[in-house]
Amino acid sequence: MPDNQHIKYLLSEDEIPRAWYNIMADMPNPPLPVLHPGTKQPVTPADLAPLFPQALIMQEVSTERYIEIPEPIRQVYRQWRPSPLYRARRLEKALDTPARIYYKYEGVSPVGSHKANTSVAQVFYNQQEGVKKISTETGAGQWGSALAMAGTLFGVDIEVFMVKISYQQKPYRRSMIQAYGATVHASPTDLTDAGRSILAKDPENQGSLGIAISEAVEVAAKSGGTIKYSLGSVLNHVLMHQTVIGEEALLQMAQADDYPDVVIGCAGGGSNLAGLVFPFIGENFRKGTKTRFLAIEPMSCPSLTKGTYAYDFGDTIGMTPLLKMHTLGHDFIPPGIHAGGLRYHGMSPLVSQLHAEGVIEARAYHQNAIFEAATIFARNEGIIPAPETAHAIKAALDEALEAKAAGQERVILFNLSGHGHFDMQAYDAYFSGKLQDYEYPAAAIEEAQKKLPQVV
Amino acid sequence: MPDNQHIKYLLSEDEIPRAWYNIMADMPNPPLPVLHPGTKQPVTPADLAPLFPQALIMQEVSTERYIEIPEPIRQVYRQWRPSPLYRARRLEKALDTPARIYYKYEGVSPVGSHKANTSVAQVFYNQQEGVKKISTETGAGQWGSALAMAGTLFGVDIEVFMVKISYQQKPYRRSMIQAYGATVHASPTDLTDAGRSILAKDPENQGSLGIAISEAVEVAAKSGGTIKYSLGSVLNHVLMHQTVIGEEALLQMAQADDYPDVVIGCAGGGSNLAGLVFPFIGENFRKGTKTRFLAIEPMSCPSLTKGTYAYDFGDTIGMTPLLKMHTLGHDFIPPGIHAGGLRYHGMSPLVSQLHAEGVIEARAYHQNAIFEAATIFARNEGIIPAPETAHAIKAALDEALEAKAAGQERVILFNLSGHGHFDMQAYDAYFSGKLQDYEYPAAAIEEAQKKLPQVV
Repeated sequence: MPDNQHIKYLLSEDEIPRAWYNIMADMPNPPLPVLHPGTKQPVTPADLAPLFPQALIMQEVSTERYIEIPEPIRQVYRQWRPSPLYRARRLEKALDTPARIYYKYEGVSPVGSHKANTSVAQVFYNQQEGVKKISTETGAGQWGSALAMAGTLFGVDIEVFMVKISYQQKPYRRSMIQAYGATVHASPTDLTDAGRSILAKDPENQGSLGIAISEAVEVAAKSGGTIKYSLGSVLNHVLMHQTVIGEEALLQMAQADDYPDVVIGCAGGGSNLAGLVFPFIGENFRKGTKTRFLAIEPMSCPSLTKGTYAYDFGDTIGMTPLLKMHTLGHDFIPPGIHAGGLRYHGMSPLVSQLHAEGVIEARAYHQNAIFEAATIFARNEGIIPAPETAHAIKAALDEALEAKAAGQERVILFNLSGHGHFDMQAYDAYFSGKLQDYEYPAAAIEEAQKKLPQVV
Repeated sequence: MPDNQHIKYLLSEDEIPRAWYNIMADMPNPPLPVLHPGTKQPVTPADLAPLFPQALIMQEVSTERYIEIPEPIRQVYRQWRPSPLYRARRLEKALDTPARIYYKYEGVSPVGSHKANTSVAQVFYNQQEGVKKISTETGAGQWGSALAMAGTLFGVDIEVFMVKISYQQKPYRRSMIQAYGATVHASPTDLTDAGRSILAKDPENQGSLGIAISEAVEVAAKSGGTIKYSLGSVLNHVLMHQTVIGEEALLQMAQADDYPDVVIGCAGGGSNLAGLVFPFIGENFRKGTKTRFLAIEPMSCPSLTKGTYAYDFGDTIGMTPLLKMHTLGHDFIPPGIHAGGLRYHGMSPLVSQLHAEGVIEARAYHQNAIFEAATIFARNEGIIPAPETAHAIKAALDEALEAKAAGQERVILFNLSGHGHFDMQAYDAYFSGKLQDYEYPAAAIEEAQKKLPQVV
């Protein structure tokens, strides 16, 4: 076989997973409860009912190992799933490494990223319970566009609060949200108390994911039940929906007659990482495999590597329940790196706990380094990755070079969670030498840490 | 089965075509010869040798029905081929039509369009003959990025002359070309006689595809054999490489146990249309099926519907051989519509002849109409199409509504040649009501027609 071939592992449509994998069934220690922001007592399903449909609340707390995927969701998944898994033979050759590098490609979805795996599921369950409208937030727009697509497919209206600076400077995913027929606002808006309170203090406020979450949650909470809220990462049920990625990858690695020594994903809220690694972590837990897991984050928003493992709000204003997670502090605003999907102060509680317990390692990189890795990848594999994804690629390259230095055969698997066709402006900045590596924002993080809520 | 499911027809990797289909073997009348621009006598293979590798020159004039696809090309095709064929059930339901609508989706390639099918083949044959560098032109950048990707995969340098207005106003495919490591210039440049002559007359010239072709051809012609030239459409061998689309679609329609009454593609140079329809035209020729074929073009660049069927240059300056084709005149500069890939004064000679002989029908639409169709499609099928592709979609919708009016079961198949992730600016203009429907440019075409070269 020629050395530069593409090796692709495909599954049949029958092999689209019939169930999501729920890691809570296999974790050695049960996850800590989510707390009510007022009482600081564990929230009840009833507390969450104004925001989420019953089916998703049940998934959030379920300890069943597998949760069946309803057929209408699998029918939509069929448009782009099973997604391909590739062996990166050209890249291995270019690196002259004995490592074998595999990647799972989620950029084949109509929105170009993994986000559709959960948006379709969330909108379906809402529609089943008669919900006519869902509010959400989005940073650079990956999540907003994925939810908007699911909304149009199931006939549910979607209202998106998009971080203002992205709305203005990266308008193309905003256009995509509109193309799917959804409504999109530049957040902070004057449509909510949360937005108005921010604008009153700072009329020029450029927005943040934390503020946009406050606005979207408020819209749902005050709707009297007519509008529900949806989140694109962080929560247990969202991570679980993404496990179709890893469940497929398990079958595809078996097809390849190989098994990963290390599995890698970038981590903002944690769902794309979890989607690939949780099923493999489950194998470690149940079968005693010794696979390593790497969460990769930006140096400028290093929640796992520099944050505190503590209870904090998911949003800036403090409207959401308190989550036990690695957090930089809920009012920390990360520098404006191009990987907008990784600019979140917190981290999924499940990923946080697995990191705290030593199951998932974490590593942080600067943006010039990740664009260098992305360019090496593109020139060998043909696919231009999203800046978020490029974090995972950088780690995969480092692992492959480490294996080379050690003269080891190492099997590396990473999640190529999205294509970079909406991010060419960032590549431009990189090629023209204008890309800034922000200092690690120590002072801002220190300040934000002081405002962590007190929980007894 | 639920009504809103995605029905996808997939092939195995073994079913990636092993040969391209050469329609010249089956055409009732042989194609007219290409003429030398100086002598106006038929060109010989030797005349073309400065521009193209021998293998492609032989393909250009071959009358073999099937030409084997070399294994290294199939290996690269494997990254995204076989591409899926979908039944548009949701769209059918939304239109309430008895028609059955199918589409072949080429947006799954790493560059997001069908162009990679020929770029990979062309670069491979050049590399096999020891060529180290290839020059080409590109309009909005689809072709330039596809050739750049193939260049990096086979280790051949690529130099792209990109129409200046696109280089400046739609920079993201330019960035993509650079991400793959190719060189890209805003054309007209001062690097060529062709560019300098244009700039001398008009220093503010914004460029056109015809000018960029002149520059790229000149670079190759004057290189003393070290640089070859590559074209992304129009020529016989380019159209032939695209027939992998139609060959796969024949197998997928058989899987669906169905057969198209009408097959539709948009037409700029003709390759994406030809890629889908030629294998089906071959069935008409050899088996007597009665499928109709539709070429769809923009109202502002209507070469098939308003051009003359005559010998003309492929470029603006008059450096290329003369092709017998539907042409608006080689110095006609089309209005700046967003479907940049359809802004070409001419049309593939094979498509032109099949249109002249009544095999292929043609139809033209304004851009607001095609964006309306694209939006209906996106909201039902989830995929946001490129503006070029949207021309085919508009025709598919019209055919489906016509079938409804007539109470007919009609089977419609079209080529969804690319996604619109690089074209959201155009959608923005459409949604905000700022998209201009240019008048049919009758006076400019009349003027350009006067300059058609005289051929006895």
